[in-house]
Amino acid sequence: MSLVIIRKNAPTAPWQQAFASQAPDLAVHAWPETGPLEEVDYVLCWAPGAGEIARYPNLKAVFSLGAGVDHLLSDDTIPLHLPIVRMVDKSITDGMVQYVVMSVLNHHRRMNEMRANQAEKIWQKLDLSNPQIGIMGMGGLGKASARALAAMGYRVRGWNRSGRPVEGLEVFGGAGCLKPFLAETDILISLLPHTEETIGILNRETFAALRQGAYIINAGRGEQLVEEDLLRALRSGQICGAMLDVFCKEPLAADHPFWGEERVTVTPHIASWVDPVAGTAHVLRAIEAIKHCEIPEGQVDRTAGY
Amino acid sequence: MSLVIIRKNAPTAPWQQAFASQAPDLAVHAWPETGPLEEVDYVLCWAPGAGEIARYPNLKAVFSLGAGVDHLLSDDTIPLHLPIVRMVDKSITDGMVQYVVMSVLNHHRRMNEMRANQAEKIWQKLDLSNPQIGIMGMGGLGKASARALAAMGYRVRGWNRSGRPVEGLEVFGGAGCLKPFLAETDILISLLPHTEETIGILNRETFAALRQGAYIINAGRGEQLVEEDLLRALRSGQICGAMLDVFCKEPLAADHPFWGEERVTVTPHIASWVDPVAGTAHVLRAIEAIKHCEIPEGQVDRTAGY
Repeated sequence: MSLVIIRKNAPTAPWQQAFASQAPDLAVHAWPETGPLEEVDYVLCWAPGAGEIARYPNLKAVFSLGAGVDHLLSDDTIPLHLPIVRMVDKSITDGMVQYVVMSVLNHHRRMNEMRANQAEKIWQKLDLSNPQIGIMGMGGLGKASARALAAMGYRVRGWNRSGRPVEGLEVFGGAGCLKPFLAETDILISLLPHTEETIGILNRETFAALRQGAYIINAGRGEQLVEEDLLRALRSGQICGAMLDVFCKEPLAADHPFWGEERVTVTPHIASWVDPVAGTAHVLRAIEAIKHCEIPEGQVDRTAGY
Repeated sequence: MSLVIIRKNAPTAPWQQAFASQAPDLAVHAWPETGPLEEVDYVLCWAPGAGEIARYPNLKAVFSLGAGVDHLLSDDTIPLHLPIVRMVDKSITDGMVQYVVMSVLNHHRRMNEMRANQAEKIWQKLDLSNPQIGIMGMGGLGKASARALAAMGYRVRGWNRSGRPVEGLEVFGGAGCLKPFLAETDILISLLPHTEETIGILNRETFAALRQGAYIINAGRGEQLVEEDLLRALRSGQICGAMLDVFCKEPLAADHPFWGEERVTVTPHIASWVDPVAGTAHVLRAIEAIKHCEIPEGQVDRTAGY
C-alpha cells in the first residue's frame, strides 16, 4: 500500500514531511517517482494530466490538493467507481474569506482613491455607498464569505444553481432567478465551482444585468469570466472595476491587457491555500473512512461536478 | 424644551431632518442658533468648545455626536452632575470593524507588493506570515474587531487597562502586562479611548517592545501616537509600516512627513461614522430613559473617562 503525490508546479516536500510525521508507516512517493504502480492505493494530486490516474490499477481513491476538482473531472479515463475527494481544510476557507472581504472593503471604502489623495496630500472624506453584495456559489466558501460580510454590516444575497436555502441569507436559485439577482447587485462575487454550466457565466449579458457601475470579484475559476467581455464592460462604464485572482490561462500572459488596466487588480491565484499539515490530516481521516466503507468528508458528487 | 445641535465642521441638516421626522414635536436648533438658552434641555454636539455647554442653565444631558467623549470631558466647566452620553450606533461599530479588518488584510495579504508586481507584470505568489494580532482597547469596537478577525482565522489577543476578561479572547490587563502582550505582537491595533493614560501610549518604548518589523494600526485617537517616535521606528526597521486614521492635528498639515512616507497609509479620519437616522433614534431613546430617571445607554463614567 502506498500514496503518490503529484504536484507538478510546486514543491512536494512539505506534504512528504507532513505524511512522514503523521503516518510514518505509509509509503509515500513524489511523482514522477511512484514505486510499483499496482501497489498504489491513493493519489493526492493537482492537475495530474489526462490518463495519469488510469495508470494505477488498484487505486481506492483520488484526492485533490485543492478545493477544486475540475482538473480530475475533466479526465474521462478515470474509472467512474473511483471516489474523488476534494481538499477540506479550514485554511482554504479562511484564506478565501480573507480575500473576498479584502476585495469588498478596498472597493467599498475607496482605498485606491484615498491612496491617490495621499500622494497629492489631499485630506478629503469620500462619500460611501451602501452596496448590495451578490455572491454566486453557495458552497462552504460562499456561505462563509456571506457570513463574514453580513457580520460587518453589508447587505448580502446569494445565488446558486439549486436554489437550496441557506440559513440567514436570501438565496436566488437557478438560471431563471439570475437576472433578478443581478439587477440589484453592486458587487458581484463568483465563488462558483468549475462545471460545464459555469464556464463563461461572467459574460456580457451578466454584466449588462448588473447595476450600472458594478464591481466584479472573481475567485472561482478563470474560465468563468469572458475576459474580453469584462474589458468591454469596463470601457463602457457598465462595470467600474474588478479584482481577479484566477484567469483562463495562468500565469497571466505578459501581454494580457489586465496587467495594465488600472481598474483591474490582478492577484496571482493566491486567494486561498492549503496548509500541508492540516491537509494531510484530512487525507488520513478520509483514508480511514474509506477503509471502514464510509463516505469520506469532501467526496465529490461526480454527477453534479462538485 | 429644546435640543441644540452643535456641529461646527460638518453639516447639521441630516440630523435636523432625522429629528423632524422621528420627533416632530421636539424643538431643534442648529448652533449658533439656539433659541432661549434657558429652554434648552439637551445638547447634541462634537467639540463645542470650552465653556459652551456651561452657557445652558437647565441642561439635562449632553450627547456626543461620536463614540468619543474626550471633547466634552476636557471641558471642566461642564457641571459634574450633568450626564454625558456617547453615541451608540451599529454603524460606528460596523465602520470601525471594516477599517480594522481592511488594514490587517492589506498588510497580511501583501496587497501593496502585489500591486507593485502588477505594475511590473510580475506573476509571483508571495509567502504569507501567520501574524499575531494585538488589540489595545477592549470596548465595543475592540471586541467586535477581535471577533471579526478571529472568525477569519487570525490569532488575536487583547489588552485593556482593567484586565476585565472578554469571552473567547485572551486579554492582558494593565500597565504591568503591556510588555508581555507587545512582545509577541506582529500587528498592533489601537482602539483605545482618549484618556490621560492613553496619551502618547504608542511611543518609542511600545514600538521597541513589539516583535521586530511589526505593523501599527491607529484608529483610536491621534494623541495616542507619538508621531516622531513612529517615524524613527520606521527608519530603524523596528516598525515596518502603519495605517493611520487619526492624527495629533487634523487635517494633517500639508508638510507632515506621513504624507510622503510610503510605508504609512494616511486616511482622513474616516474609519467609522454615525448614521444620522440611527443616531437620532439613540438620542431619543436616551431622552426617554432620562425622563424616566433611568441611566441611558452610552452614559459615560466620568471618572474612568469613557
